[in-house]
Amino acid sequence: QYPALYKELDGIRLRLEQHYKDMQDIEFTIQEGKLYMLQCRSGKRTGTAALNMAMDMVAEKLIDEKTAVTRVAPAQLDELLHPIVDSNAEKKAEAFVSGLPAGPGGAQGQIAFTSQTAVDWAKQGKKVVLVREETNPEDVEGMRAAEGILTARGGMTSHAALVARGWGKCCIVGAGELKINVHAKTMTVGGKTFQEGDVVTLNGTRGKAYAGALPMIDATENPRFQDFMKIVDQHRKLGVRTNADTPEDARVARAFGAEGIGLFRTEHMFYGKGAEEPLFRLRKMILSSTTEERNKAIDELAPFVKQSIKATLEAMDGCPVTVRLLDPPLHEFVPQGEAGQQEMAKALGVTVADIQKRGAALHETNPMMGHRGVRLGITYPYLSEMQIRAILESAAELKKEGKNPKPEIMVPVTCSVKELDITKEIFDRVLAEVRKASGIQIECLYGTMIEIPRACLLANEMARTAEFFSFGTNDLTQMGFGFSRDDIGAFLPDYLAKKVLPADPFQTIDQEGIGQLIQMAVEKGRKTRSNLKIGICGEQGGDPASVEFCFKAGLNY
Amino acid sequence: QYPALYKELDGIRLRLEQHYKDMQDIEFTIQEGKLYMLQCRSGKRTGTAALNMAMDMVAEKLIDEKTAVTRVAPAQLDELLHPIVDSNAEKKAEAFVSGLPAGPGGAQGQIAFTSQTAVDWAKQGKKVVLVREETNPEDVEGMRAAEGILTARGGMTSHAALVARGWGKCCIVGAGELKINVHAKTMTVGGKTFQEGDVVTLNGTRGKAYAGALPMIDATENPRFQDFMKIVDQHRKLGVRTNADTPEDARVARAFGAEGIGLFRTEHMFYGKGAEEPLFRLRKMILSSTTEERNKAIDELAPFVKQSIKATLEAMDGCPVTVRLLDPPLHEFVPQGEAGQQEMAKALGVTVADIQKRGAALHETNPMMGHRGVRLGITYPYLSEMQIRAILESAAELKKEGKNPKPEIMVPVTCSVKELDITKEIFDRVLAEVRKASGIQIECLYGTMIEIPRACLLANEMARTAEFFSFGTNDLTQMGFGFSRDDIGAFLPDYLAKKVLPADPFQTIDQEGIGQLIQMAVEKGRKTRSNLKIGICGEQGGDPASVEFCFKAGLNY
Repeated sequence: QYPALYKELDGIRLRLEQHYKDMQDIEFTIQEGKLYMLQCRSGKRTGTAALNMAMDMVAEKLIDEKTAVTRVAPAQLDELLHPIVDSNAEKKAEAFVSGLPAGPGGAQGQIAFTSQTAVDWAKQGKKVVLVREETNPEDVEGMRAAEGILTARGGMTSHAALVARGWGKCCIVGAGELKINVHAKTMTVGGKTFQEGDVVTLNGTRGKAYAGALPMIDATENPRFQDFMKIVDQHRKLGVRTNADTPEDARVARAFGAEGIGLFRTEHMFYGKGAEEPLFRLRKMILSSTTEERNKAIDELAPFVKQSIKATLEAMDGCPVTVRLLDPPLHEFVPQGEAGQQEMAKALGVTVADIQKRGAALHETNPMMGHRGVRLGITYPYLSEMQIRAILESAAELKKEGKNPKPEIMVPVTCSVKELDITKEIFDRVLAEVRKASGIQIECLYGTMIEIPRACLLANEMARTAEFFSFGTNDLTQMGFGFSRDDIGAFLPDYLAKKVLPADPFQTIDQEGIGQLIQMAVEKGRKTRSNLKIGICGEQGGDPASVEFCFKAGLNY
Repeated sequence: QYPALYKELDGIRLRLEQHYKDMQDIEFTIQEGKLYMLQCRSGKRTGTAALNMAMDMVAEKLIDEKTAVTRVAPAQLDELLHPIVDSNAEKKAEAFVSGLPAGPGGAQGQIAFTSQTAVDWAKQGKKVVLVREETNPEDVEGMRAAEGILTARGGMTSHAALVARGWGKCCIVGAGELKINVHAKTMTVGGKTFQEGDVVTLNGTRGKAYAGALPMIDATENPRFQDFMKIVDQHRKLGVRTNADTPEDARVARAFGAEGIGLFRTEHMFYGKGAEEPLFRLRKMILSSTTEERNKAIDELAPFVKQSIKATLEAMDGCPVTVRLLDPPLHEFVPQGEAGQQEMAKALGVTVADIQKRGAALHETNPMMGHRGVRLGITYPYLSEMQIRAILESAAELKKEGKNPKPEIMVPVTCSVKELDITKEIFDRVLAEVRKASGIQIECLYGTMIEIPRACLLANEMARTAEFFSFGTNDLTQMGFGFSRDDIGAFLPDYLAKKVLPADPFQTIDQEGIGQLIQMAVEKGRKTRSNLKIGICGEQGGDPASVEFCFKAGLNY
């Protein structure tokens, strides 16, 4: 109709795209045969589109590599890392239940109401979504076998949520409207009943569950994604370490390019495959009533701890592995079922009633601020000693085998340098013993988590003994705000809606408040020890704004 | 045998006592007929002896009043305020059980296993010690009637401990070895069985319980004590306000010389005599599922809140009364018994199962860091509005009656100035409404508790809206250390024994750590608002070293 105008418009488009070096959304109007340009802006796109366009533009030399890196927003990158539910299909579908977005990405499969079913079906090649009231350590194999996990109860740090996020697995927790009947193998929600075997689709990023199989998108295997990440690596300045809790995790992370393990939590050996034996010994330790009983259980636990650590150091050969000393929520490991209690009573030579009473005595009103982390090591020094010995002996043995292990020992939940000093005495003694026995000059850094406000206030003292700090920003945020992450569901939505807080402080570091504690700790720590290594191992380490803040605050990784 | 030496010794004693102006412990030896003086130091004495000696020396003009004040150590003064177990008798007796020292002082009486028995026996003039597995709001009358309280479960901030300390009543909690059989009316411990009616003696300062009646000492009614306190008042510089939660408490505190109420907690109307009606309405509010239901319950609660506040303002006429907005541990008020649940179901027109489900939904993993304080006001603004209106209307009515009420509104558990701003909007609106309706120009200060670390870090912002700060040092210590006060029993004894900490930070402010937060808040707060009033309302306000620290930090009261 207006060939001349079309040509004119196309010419303007080209000029705009070359000027902005990006795809443009253009608004225009034609009035009385004249073309009016109204506005333009860089076009919105999905993660995949952003990746493809950025790589195309590099190939066409329209933009340089550094610009290409900035063209894929962190949220888009996250999208690329998880298979996701097709958003167009999701718009048309109606969720049958909503919960907390505990593990991002999408998943679909047949409902299994028990972990055993999940494991059996997965072996048969079926895709499974495990649906549970809540999960506990005995469910871990089922969780591992499942594509995704859906629970009726639990918060963002419930067992299901922690395990799923650790694995990068899709997970929705606290979907309170679900009524699950494990015996009848059904679940009911909003008048609708699902049978075991029915297919459902989860969007773990949004916390929504849908009936049936919605279309999915998976972009991770794209070779252009691999090329893009290579470019990113050339331009970054911060070190990258992974959180990994098993030798398998360590291997995966290394394949993904991690330069070390920033947080290795030994307690994950008490979940999942092969966990029965160490878990039994841990329970024995927890439920012991005398030092003798306890130390015996600790001795029995030692080989399992050593095996896990040694295999991980071996998998990460040549790279630093920061092993955090045990920080288990004790009461979670108390056997609840009668069978487990009987077994434990037999093992310890006491009555079931005794076991129940000892279990009840471990109950804490506020477990987040209870008997955990280094506090266990202060009351049970032999527990620290066993772990330190396992780490140092592993390193000595690997060195003998010609490997280059780089262990680092990290003490959790500290609030005073005395806690570090007391544990350091054990460390120094065991180090000397292992060096003497093995004839190997092993080296091992000694440092601490900084996750308690008081540790930030006294970071100058902490750094007298600690050779490195690693900010546990999850706990620091909990204590700094007085927000229990498990319980914020009751008020955080209102806080965000009424703009009391600009964002969920567990997603992105609260720079003006908690950030002060971090900066204070960095400054005070480096004043005492100028070469103090400082990293972050909270989940906010995966948030772009938090990463920027950490970089500015002077963190190393 | 050596009259000359005796005379020489007596002369030296006199010189030493006149030199040191205090009673001396003197060590000497006689060898080969010669007197050798080895050492001397000021003699130790009980609180009563210290008081008598100080007052004697003032009368004899040996020391001045200011010196006399320093002669009675704060711990000795504390000893004078509570009837106590005679320490000589206690040394010879053997405790049948130990627990946590939740309420200081001594108590003795006949064991009562139910609150009803305690009340009945007290009416008959018997002295009663209430023994319970743990206490709940329904036990308050029994607790009031009892001389002392002993529970098998619960920590330092359990219901029993809080109520007892509030009343200055002797209390031991968490005596886990007690096996109480309420039906058989017996308790067994270490093979020994006690019947209801048996006499026991409690030392609440040490957490020890003894069979039978041990001798007691009571020094409070000593007129010399009254004279001494008058002297003390003439020399002090800090203001003194009391914590009081009922009009009766306020009257007592005023009689003891308090210059105001620093912390009035309205939630104490839900415990004890006459609590049934307001408690029922509070429960209705907590268990409401719609805003309409909730606001109706709040309206029903309003007259009770107003009555309590008005009577307190009246009792403290002319003195400031700081009313803290509600900070109730919601889940504690959920009715547990079936009868209570049925009543509530009927009142709300729902099923008992609904009530149970709503109750379960209120369960929190870490209630200390959960949905409490101002967070309730952010999610339920009408709850704040009702309380603010009750305070301001009470003040207006009292002014009309020719009184001089001085209310101050304090917002608890704040971590952001936005919380204060949102609540202040309600305050300003209600103030204008009440002024207009009453035609009275009432005045009311608006301030905040500072008990969350983030509030200290951002005190400059908090002071933009808050006209006063009051440090809640209990919670600030909990969050700053990551120590749950209810759960520290498992590790604090080891922390003190191994000198990780020099003292229990809940007894005396941790000056080097938490003290930094306090000083930071004082400095930042006064930078924004130079005339900011600052006080303390944690329990450490009763600790001498903490009082000294607060004075140096620039607090007003």
